[in-house]
Amino acid sequence: MQSQPIPSLDIDRLRADTPGCQDSLFMNSAGASLMPQPVVTAMQEYLQQEIQLGGYEVERLRISQTTRFYDETARLLNTHPSNIAYAYSATDATIQVLSAIPFRAGDTILTTTNDYVSNQLAFLSMQQRLGIRLLRINDLPNGDLDLTHLEELIRAHRPVLIAITHIPTNSGLVLPAEEVGRLCRQYDVWYLLDAAQSTGQLPLDVTLLQADFLVATGRKFLRGPRNTGFLYVSDRVLEAGLSPLFIDRRGATWTGPDAFTLQPNARRFEPQEVSLLHVGLTEAIRYANQVGIEAIRGQNQRLMRRLRTGLEQLDGINRLDWGSHQGNILTFNTSRQPLPALEAALRQGRVVFTAQYPSSALIDFQRKGIDWLIRLSPHYFNTLAEMDEVVDLMAHILR
Amino acid sequence: MQSQPIPSLDIDRLRADTPGCQDSLFMNSAGASLMPQPVVTAMQEYLQQEIQLGGYEVERLRISQTTRFYDETARLLNTHPSNIAYAYSATDATIQVLSAIPFRAGDTILTTTNDYVSNQLAFLSMQQRLGIRLLRINDLPNGDLDLTHLEELIRAHRPVLIAITHIPTNSGLVLPAEEVGRLCRQYDVWYLLDAAQSTGQLPLDVTLLQADFLVATGRKFLRGPRNTGFLYVSDRVLEAGLSPLFIDRRGATWTGPDAFTLQPNARRFEPQEVSLLHVGLTEAIRYANQVGIEAIRGQNQRLMRRLRTGLEQLDGINRLDWGSHQGNILTFNTSRQPLPALEAALRQGRVVFTAQYPSSALIDFQRKGIDWLIRLSPHYFNTLAEMDEVVDLMAHILR
Repeated sequence: MQSQPIPSLDIDRLRADTPGCQDSLFMNSAGASLMPQPVVTAMQEYLQQEIQLGGYEVERLRISQTTRFYDETARLLNTHPSNIAYAYSATDATIQVLSAIPFRAGDTILTTTNDYVSNQLAFLSMQQRLGIRLLRINDLPNGDLDLTHLEELIRAHRPVLIAITHIPTNSGLVLPAEEVGRLCRQYDVWYLLDAAQSTGQLPLDVTLLQADFLVATGRKFLRGPRNTGFLYVSDRVLEAGLSPLFIDRRGATWTGPDAFTLQPNARRFEPQEVSLLHVGLTEAIRYANQVGIEAIRGQNQRLMRRLRTGLEQLDGINRLDWGSHQGNILTFNTSRQPLPALEAALRQGRVVFTAQYPSSALIDFQRKGIDWLIRLSPHYFNTLAEMDEVVDLMAHILR
Repeated sequence: MQSQPIPSLDIDRLRADTPGCQDSLFMNSAGASLMPQPVVTAMQEYLQQEIQLGGYEVERLRISQTTRFYDETARLLNTHPSNIAYAYSATDATIQVLSAIPFRAGDTILTTTNDYVSNQLAFLSMQQRLGIRLLRINDLPNGDLDLTHLEELIRAHRPVLIAITHIPTNSGLVLPAEEVGRLCRQYDVWYLLDAAQSTGQLPLDVTLLQADFLVATGRKFLRGPRNTGFLYVSDRVLEAGLSPLFIDRRGATWTGPDAFTLQPNARRFEPQEVSLLHVGLTEAIRYANQVGIEAIRGQNQRLMRRLRTGLEQLDGINRLDWGSHQGNILTFNTSRQPLPALEAALRQGRVVFTAQYPSSALIDFQRKGIDWLIRLSPHYFNTLAEMDEVVDLMAHILR
């Protein structure tokens, strides 16, 4: 973490790049954010070329653009292009990782109560099918991850994999990814960090995080197209020869009737097909690098402080966030309005938000005793005035 | 197979829908075809809406369009919408299938010498990692699949899965998918049909094919966007409770800390994320249904007869196709020109084609003793005059 002053952003210019931000109070970047114009233009141009030339011909002509994806992503994570693989989503990348680790019956996976629902489902399916054991690290009363319990579990169970979601889908908190990384290295455990919500929102440096696998999605705070993502794998993973169980022609070369060789670098984790979405993701990562993640974080902190402070002062709001480090996700509910009325009123006020239900984060909903919540997730292209407008609207709704 | 007369197509109108076909002699529909304008327009409109509203908001507004995907695909295959799952590619769908079957060490997979390279690689990886046994069915001297050998292998090895590629990536042949289906049903073996090259080119009726799993891609003869595909699963599969090993929140619902329920229908095989590509694929399938697959097949037969006859008459061409049933893929090479010169001459003549190398179809290349081949794959939007033009060009090149 650098101590140099955080540059401030030219918000007007960034908003001019974001046509949709004029039409709404867009606060769903944790769902799927608004793409900036350069991302859209890149995809439109690619599509236009495909119509004229055909998909394979365009790919052949644009090989240098494909290379740029690895360069920009490596820059984002402070690593090398050879450690980066394209993916169809963070979940798709996670599946490639889970299939690559040769789990045996009785092996332990450690995760948290807050790990992303699709990860939890994959682990549970592996528990049923493969006989792996799934254990969850406790949370402290304030919602933080109990690192002492994590170390106890590591010593007692010698897990094969520790899987953490950096910023869970609700609850607002940012997990101590670096501290978990230190323990993983200390005890030599594979470490999978789901950075779907943190990529594009917080600086991510894999040399500090010490993750073996980091998965990310394009559509959230990176502001890329849906159905895109990427995977970082460490040199340790590559040197161990790990590769997806269901390897395809992009990840390996068929060399004999019963033989194949793996791609030497992280591309062995890539799925076969690409499309215009690849170009869109590349452009989104380039854009984030250009805007600057430190500056993005600075603006986000200003926005979230304003929004949290404003909403906290309202009567009738049940704030559902916790933890000592909080990011760009804010969740709450209320008993003053039923959900449909609240949703209608927010839509009426042009707020774009997410309503969440227990199946999105079952353990968290159960312990909080709630059936639904509203999630607001601003991003740097939002303004302080928009935060105030949402607070005023909520004050009106709850009156 | 119906005996009613094949309607003929309004080729001029279909070509007007296909901007790229004016610029080239496009003969790479087996790679990635040219998208018709309605497919492109649908994606452009979707993208435009996403820019303004955000990805999740657009998906919510367009639920009926999502439903249309299942309806159109079911119509294409003569089945029910509940048997259809979206996929990111045929390979992606194949991986979902392979992960769903609970293979144990020693289980046998039967495939062909011609099965698609990514399938072969996945099987070989499973052989190394899981200890499954991979056996390949012999071909007859004319290139046809040896169905007698297939039945012998079934009786001797009681395979868990038989996996066939309906139309291999080269060699021109169409495999006897219905006859294989009959044997699979007779001996109660899971049957996976890779219809990536046949979908959009030939009528496919799953009640005749009797496949348990049929995988398809959008980008080839269906003329959809790249990075799309679908999966058909039989009721037998659903009733057996098969589901992908790495299930996600689209395929299952999290119901308790250690419990989940599967989607009741084929959606349990779907991956999590969708995008504008979903809309493009839906439109491509609708378009194919509207043009009519029987009519498409009729036009294709006319085109391929013209092209095959023309090229056969040229001195110096080594035709590499075989088998008693042939489709829209034509492969050849020559000793009269080195590959780079031939490629340059074809490009100079505005032909869009594929050059293939051994790693695309290793066993086939090895038995034919070749290092490369040229593949031409016209589709119904091509004209007889274009076939003649390519033949004339090749005559000139080989002179």
